[in-house]
Amino acid sequence: MQVQISPRGSLVQLSQIEVERLQESAVSELHQLFRSCALAVLASGAHTDDSAALFERFSDFRIRILRRARGIKLELTNPPPQAFVDGEIIRGIQEHLFAVLRDILYIGDKLGSSRQINLTNSSHLTNAVFETLRNAKALPVLSQPNMIVCWGGHSINREEYQYTREVGYQLGLRELNICTGCGPGAMEGPMKGAAIAHAKQRIKNGRFVGLTEPSIIAAEPPNQIVNELIILPDIEKRLEAFVRLGHGIIIFPGGVGTMEELLYLLGIKLNQLNDEQAIPLVLTGPKESENYFKEIDRFIRSTLGEEATSLYKIIIDDPEQVAKYLREQMEHVRQSRRDAGDAYAYNWSLHIEPEFQLPFNPDHQSMASLHLYPQTNRALLAADLRRAFSGIVAGNVKAEGVAHIKKYGPFQLYGDDKIMKKMDKLLAAFVKQGRMKLEGTYTPCYEIRNAQ
Amino acid sequence: MQVQISPRGSLVQLSQIEVERLQESAVSELHQLFRSCALAVLASGAHTDDSAALFERFSDFRIRILRRARGIKLELTNPPPQAFVDGEIIRGIQEHLFAVLRDILYIGDKLGSSRQINLTNSSHLTNAVFETLRNAKALPVLSQPNMIVCWGGHSINREEYQYTREVGYQLGLRELNICTGCGPGAMEGPMKGAAIAHAKQRIKNGRFVGLTEPSIIAAEPPNQIVNELIILPDIEKRLEAFVRLGHGIIIFPGGVGTMEELLYLLGIKLNQLNDEQAIPLVLTGPKESENYFKEIDRFIRSTLGEEATSLYKIIIDDPEQVAKYLREQMEHVRQSRRDAGDAYAYNWSLHIEPEFQLPFNPDHQSMASLHLYPQTNRALLAADLRRAFSGIVAGNVKAEGVAHIKKYGPFQLYGDDKIMKKMDKLLAAFVKQGRMKLEGTYTPCYEIRNAQ
Amino acid sequence: MQVQISPRGSLVQLSQIEVERLQESAVSELHQLFRSCALAVLASGAHTDDSAALFERFSDFRIRILRRARGIKLELTNPPPQAFVDGEIIRGIQEHLFAVLRDILYIGDKLGSSRQINLTNSSHLTNAVFETLRNAKALPVLSQPNMIVCWGGHSINREEYQYTREVGYQLGLRELNICTGCGPGAMEGPMKGAAIAHAKQRIKNGRFVGLTEPSIIAAEPPNQIVNELIILPDIEKRLEAFVRLGHGIIIFPGGVGTMEELLYLLGIKLNQLNDEQAIPLVLTGPKESENYFKEIDRFIRSTLGEEATSLYKIIIDDPEQVAKYLREQMEHVRQSRRDAGDAYAYNWSLHIEPEFQLPFNPDHQSMASLHLYPQTNRALLAADLRRAFSGIVAGNVKAEGVAHIKKYGPFQLYGDDKIMKKMDKLLAAFVKQGRMKLEGTYTPCYEIRNAQ
Amino acid sequence: MQVQISPRGSLVQLSQIEVERLQESAVSELHQLFRSCALAVLASGAHTDDSAALFERFSDFRIRILRRARGIKLELTNPPPQAFVDGEIIRGIQEHLFAVLRDILYIGDKLGSSRQINLTNSSHLTNAVFETLRNAKALPVLSQPNMIVCWGGHSINREEYQYTREVGYQLGLRELNICTGCGPGAMEGPMKGAAIAHAKQRIKNGRFVGLTEPSIIAAEPPNQIVNELIILPDIEKRLEAFVRLGHGIIIFPGGVGTMEELLYLLGIKLNQLNDEQAIPLVLTGPKESENYFKEIDRFIRSTLGEEATSLYKIIIDDPEQVAKYLREQMEHVRQSRRDAGDAYAYNWSLHIEPEFQLPFNPDHQSMASLHLYPQTNRALLAADLRRAFSGIVAGNVKAEGVAHIKKYGPFQLYGDDKIMKKMDKLLAAFVKQGRMKLEGTYTPCYEIRNAQ
Repeated sequence: MQVQISPRGSLVQLSQIEVERLQESAVSELHQLFRSCALAVLASGAHTDDSAALFERFSDFRIRILRRARGIKLELTNPPPQAFVDGEIIRGIQEHLFAVLRDILYIGDKLGSSRQINLTNSSHLTNAVFETLRNAKALPVLSQPNMIVCWGGHSINREEYQYTREVGYQLGLRELNICTGCGPGAMEGPMKGAAIAHAKQRIKNGRFVGLTEPSIIAAEPPNQIVNELIILPDIEKRLEAFVRLGHGIIIFPGGVGTMEELLYLLGIKLNQLNDEQAIPLVLTGPKESENYFKEIDRFIRSTLGEEATSLYKIIIDDPEQVAKYLREQMEHVRQSRRDAGDAYAYNWSLHIEPEFQLPFNPDHQSMASLHLYPQTNRALLAADLRRAFSGIVAGNVKAEGVAHIKKYGPFQLYGDDKIMKKMDKLLAAFVKQGRMKLEGTYTPCYEIRNAQ
Repeated sequence: MQVQISPRGSLVQLSQIEVERLQESAVSELHQLFRSCALAVLASGAHTDDSAALFERFSDFRIRILRRARGIKLELTNPPPQAFVDGEIIRGIQEHLFAVLRDILYIGDKLGSSRQINLTNSSHLTNAVFETLRNAKALPVLSQPNMIVCWGGHSINREEYQYTREVGYQLGLRELNICTGCGPGAMEGPMKGAAIAHAKQRIKNGRFVGLTEPSIIAAEPPNQIVNELIILPDIEKRLEAFVRLGHGIIIFPGGVGTMEELLYLLGIKLNQLNDEQAIPLVLTGPKESENYFKEIDRFIRSTLGEEATSLYKIIIDDPEQVAKYLREQMEHVRQSRRDAGDAYAYNWSLHIEPEFQLPFNPDHQSMASLHLYPQTNRALLAADLRRAFSGIVAGNVKAEGVAHIKKYGPFQLYGDDKIMKKMDKLLAAFVKQGRMKLEGTYTPCYEIRNAQ
Repeated sequence: MQVQISPRGSLVQLSQIEVERLQESAVSELHQLFRSCALAVLASGAHTDDSAALFERFSDFRIRILRRARGIKLELTNPPPQAFVDGEIIRGIQEHLFAVLRDILYIGDKLGSSRQINLTNSSHLTNAVFETLRNAKALPVLSQPNMIVCWGGHSINREEYQYTREVGYQLGLRELNICTGCGPGAMEGPMKGAAIAHAKQRIKNGRFVGLTEPSIIAAEPPNQIVNELIILPDIEKRLEAFVRLGHGIIIFPGGVGTMEELLYLLGIKLNQLNDEQAIPLVLTGPKESENYFKEIDRFIRSTLGEEATSLYKIIIDDPEQVAKYLREQMEHVRQSRRDAGDAYAYNWSLHIEPEFQLPFNPDHQSMASLHLYPQTNRALLAADLRRAFSGIVAGNVKAEGVAHIKKYGPFQLYGDDKIMKKMDKLLAAFVKQGRMKLEGTYTPCYEIRNAQ
Repeated sequence: MQVQISPRGSLVQLSQIEVERLQESAVSELHQLFRSCALAVLASGAHTDDSAALFERFSDFRIRILRRARGIKLELTNPPPQAFVDGEIIRGIQEHLFAVLRDILYIGDKLGSSRQINLTNSSHLTNAVFETLRNAKALPVLSQPNMIVCWGGHSINREEYQYTREVGYQLGLRELNICTGCGPGAMEGPMKGAAIAHAKQRIKNGRFVGLTEPSIIAAEPPNQIVNELIILPDIEKRLEAFVRLGHGIIIFPGGVGTMEELLYLLGIKLNQLNDEQAIPLVLTGPKESENYFKEIDRFIRSTLGEEATSLYKIIIDDPEQVAKYLREQMEHVRQSRRDAGDAYAYNWSLHIEPEFQLPFNPDHQSMASLHLYPQTNRALLAADLRRAFSGIVAGNVKAEGVAHIKKYGPFQLYGDDKIMKKMDKLLAAFVKQGRMKLEGTYTPCYEIRNAQ
């Protein structure tokens, strides 16, 4: 089976030089990345986080960029059939497909070939994230802050899933939009709930923004509700996109990825330059999750200190309260942006230090070198803890990380005795609660060591 | 608790005479009807078909029309709290509320006070249905037939419900809209499925039309997806609205109401004047429903003859096939309307005889008088069979019917021996399959008798 | 030449009863009226106020309503060719054509056949005007008052015309809309100016409302800019539509029609029940018109008293000042409507006495019976003066009036010596200034007499 | 007087790096250019082509880019008051102002700092023109070719002006859009006419595209109707934008600039690679212009040959015929684009040789070096003739050219005796007909010489 797909939503009008560059990029070392992401998007709806299996199953899938005088077409060979209805591609998937092309090949090349942008410079990174989002038309002029970022696990139980859906419903009733990492579980539930609430409130332009990255998209393919898909180049830029795009943040139960997100945000909030920032943060889950959040709260208190625990609000088993609180906070966010003369759509004035921006490439050496000791500047510890959890995510589900572990065995993490114990305990709880993987028995990809 | 609600969607601009007339109607004998329907709409989402219980629970609910120089407001006292978010009425419910006011008081008065309309005249009835729909803006200028009417039970099992949802999803993927009787069960499932498919296909103006009537709305309150609610004065006008508005019809498993709908449509299709009409009709359900449809098919064959069974297509357990078939049929419908010079939005040229139009008021006498015998003109038998089932629906769930039964015992149905046996058997099966009522043990509201 | 025209803007969806009634009306005594108005609209752009000549020229023009299952078409035989481009009717003219059908045949029949409306009752008349406007979709929900009514002569000189255009331009720059009597001269200039200003201000939905009546439309066919055309049944309803629809009023130089409008408005403003009403009224013209307005001011002072002259503001040769003043006044209008709980789109709370509402049918007897004497209630004198000028308009340009004069000689006007002298002087000035007719020498259709 | 203006239409969302670059550019050697163009746009409506006088009059005008966290504002000191209404800038002028900023500073910097674009490469130039137009959102996805380019003089007489207006009216009636050089005269008339026709045809999204360049914008400031203003860097890119954007071209009477345009287009059409191209070209004017076009026709025949005269159609005094012809041709254009697989919005497949693309910088040396001799490849002569006329335009109205002439005397043009005589005659006719300048006596900026 072979079909040709026209652009939709993105890349509708390209110059001939752009077409050439795309064709060149598409046969470069980026081709595999592009093909994988395209496949992930086309297979959306399949309930799995096992990207290897997905790639195995569609090993004869091919994708090619065709040149037309008026622009491009994508030629797909042996694509997953579920992306089509009576031979026509589903329009939402078509948009996602061209979002992949746009973000993997087009914008990267643009940023790379501009003499104006230097991707090792902190403020340039912030600009690159902005340009990626703007190019994806994800920065509309807003009259009111309304974007709630929902973080949480892709592998959660039924009660937790229902809870995320109910929170989404209550948010949607209050005319709030949803932004998530765009996979299943806590990334899908709030969107489904909000979509129904938007229908009841007659909101036709509800936004369901999915922010992902090439290394995770196959494990967490965009769910069906996402109507704005953006693929950032790496987890650090993705996290920066979340916090500059969002006006409020909810953390649902999750695993190591969720901890990475929490530590990232706390590390930024602990920065005194951000004292005037309004970024409401709620940790919430159903009754059954109460202990889960207590444990996390304890972990934060004992590693980042009492102050850090004042930077979030824990609400147990009360979706309406979560939504009411965030709705009310939107006015403070608005006021704070006005006071700072800042845009509503992108929080320029938030300070993010380089240790939270520069890509962390987890391998056995970089993981072993993390400095997991008490520090005067708590944000620095938060940065390294964030990296540690980021590495474990990679070892669990990202293709490269999984390959590393397979070859060299588990990552070794060293640090302060007390901190390492806390960490060990937390991770063990995640394993026990099944938060590491969707299916199968979990073998840890890490070993917690005391200081060397 | 007392709130004032402004018009939305309907009745936004009224003349002062109209305001006066509304205020007068609202304190007339129509008040109870208006109040009940308003309550049903406000309580939408409650999972019950027990309207008496609903009215009992909100016995202190009051509604009043307030006059403002610029129009009207509705004042609600002690309304169901689930209609509100943080003190504001949900906009979908607000629209439904004013649809009730519009259809119960406004359009009725308009039609009643026009010297142009005579509601005992067949063609005038067709015009009255048209005016009611047009007044509700339910007749947009269409470029393509696309409205699928879904009939089926409000009380169906989980597999059946999932099946209706999946059919709706497949219809929605093919850009078809949904029209139902607007209650739960088979009236809700297709809408939910289509809504998700519309989101995937980026269709923002999907239509979810609910056609109801005052005597059933409390038992089958409009589900959350309905974005066009129209209350026709009685079941006959409601059925006429369905067949003139729809471009294709699906019958899911259901009970007596669903039989009424099937007999109504077969009665019309048997009319030779309608031989050129294209009204695709599909009976469908999951694997488990195969026997159910076989039984109905046998009943139709033995009462209305072989010819009648050629007027529908039975598809078992294949949602995609159902949707593909109807999608293809839309082109025939379009051609047939063009050939007849007829509108796409309203099928003027369909012939409906008076016996299908004039209101049948089921009571013990009228039910006993039905002529349930073989007839040369099969349509006449279909008409009386339709009335018989209609009466049973009333005896089961409509307030007036239920009161009748309570007072005088079950309706008595007389007729041809063979026909009566078939009917008895079918009804017994419905009882056994739990298709009569949502909750509790079912006591039949009818007795099948042989000819007197 | 024969063409069939489909509905546009109005009457797109008719019931079959409505189609029948239209067909019946169209062959009734209304047919001539309908044909004349349709011809006037089709010939729009021709520079003449000689309706007899127009009818003469297109004496073989025929119009018929064709019945289609889906509605109607209009069949035109020998229509004026300027209404067509390459065989297709110009869409603006198509809309006007169906506005004529809607207002002459459709709405009249609707109002006539409703048992709710009594056209001799004052408040019912106000409702009938409302229904006519609402039916024409001329009452949008407004967030802000912005409609300026411009009155003035159809026969004005070049300087005056340029001035009206410049005022329109200044109004348009301030985002105001224009409503006029829809003919040439001062009815066209402000629209042309505002249209250019709207383009500069990027306003795409500027409203150019033309209010006319069957007896004048042929003499003053709608100009090209009018995008909402409404034909009220007579001059009294047309005047009521002006003052309830408009938020501010400008009077440019004009002739007897303009005097009629001024006297109508002053008669209403003199009513103490309207003391709280905000209806800003500006009399304005170029430098050359200064004496003209002085004369009118003197006439008003000596007939209706000093108080009446305080009800308007005269601004000479300053278009920007006119527009600034009205722009500022819009806020007062808004506040006054809010205080009264009244709509922005239609001034319900304005009191208009029956003597300004009931149709005045000018003939030799009714003109001779006018009571043109000083009165305690100045509004009563204003009412009769208004009728006197109205009669002269009829004698000048309305077909029936012109026929009367031809047959029986000039109207005779009787009244108070002083008042009659003032009136004679004013009329003589109009004659001298060429304000009576577009072409040819003017023979007065009236004689001023002293009291009998 | 000092005001701050927010972005509208362009540059609404900038990254901080872009803001920085803009601020830097704005104080660079580009500042004078930016300030002049901004002033030209703000003074739009002034009837003059004397840019020096304009700059003199507003010598104390200042413009500054202010940095805001959320983007930029422009601060204007002593701007022309006609750009404001009651203290607020007119929105059309606001859009033009930011179009200037976008095209002078923003896009130039973008193109300049991209490693992908080389501005001495022919196909890169075509891409740069595309990117400039796309960045200005001037390349919508079209369903139908509809853009008519109108070329002609800025200084034309009243009859000619009325004629251009009437042609525009007839084009607009046929739903065609207009693109011109955006100044007065033949650049304004067609837009005014089409705007009125669009209003009559109820077209709300009519496009009035103005293509200009920094060196001419002050002499030919954008007229009031232009709703898409693009400033190309030089005349060659501007001409390329015209022919790739337009679907049909009209040449009205004009002067040397118009000749430049005609020769440019003929030079391209003479290229055999363009034989399949459909670019309908009409030369038209009122009765009085008949001789004018005969003269031009003779000049073309005698210089570029008989073949060249078959590349256009001359229509005298028949606006309707011009519009009908172009309307019909649109179908051929559509077919030709489809056959070539080309876009409707931008003609990629048209071949333009480097001699028509690379900037010609007219000075005494470059003008004297033009090779105005008969050539086998007629297109090469067309190219040099184009340059000769281009230089005369510069010497007449462009600031730099005027300064050159003032300093060094008239340009000297050398060439073949016969060609030079023809040219002299044509130019003399232009002078005589007042086509060189709007006001004052004209002193030629050139001297025609025979071959050296």
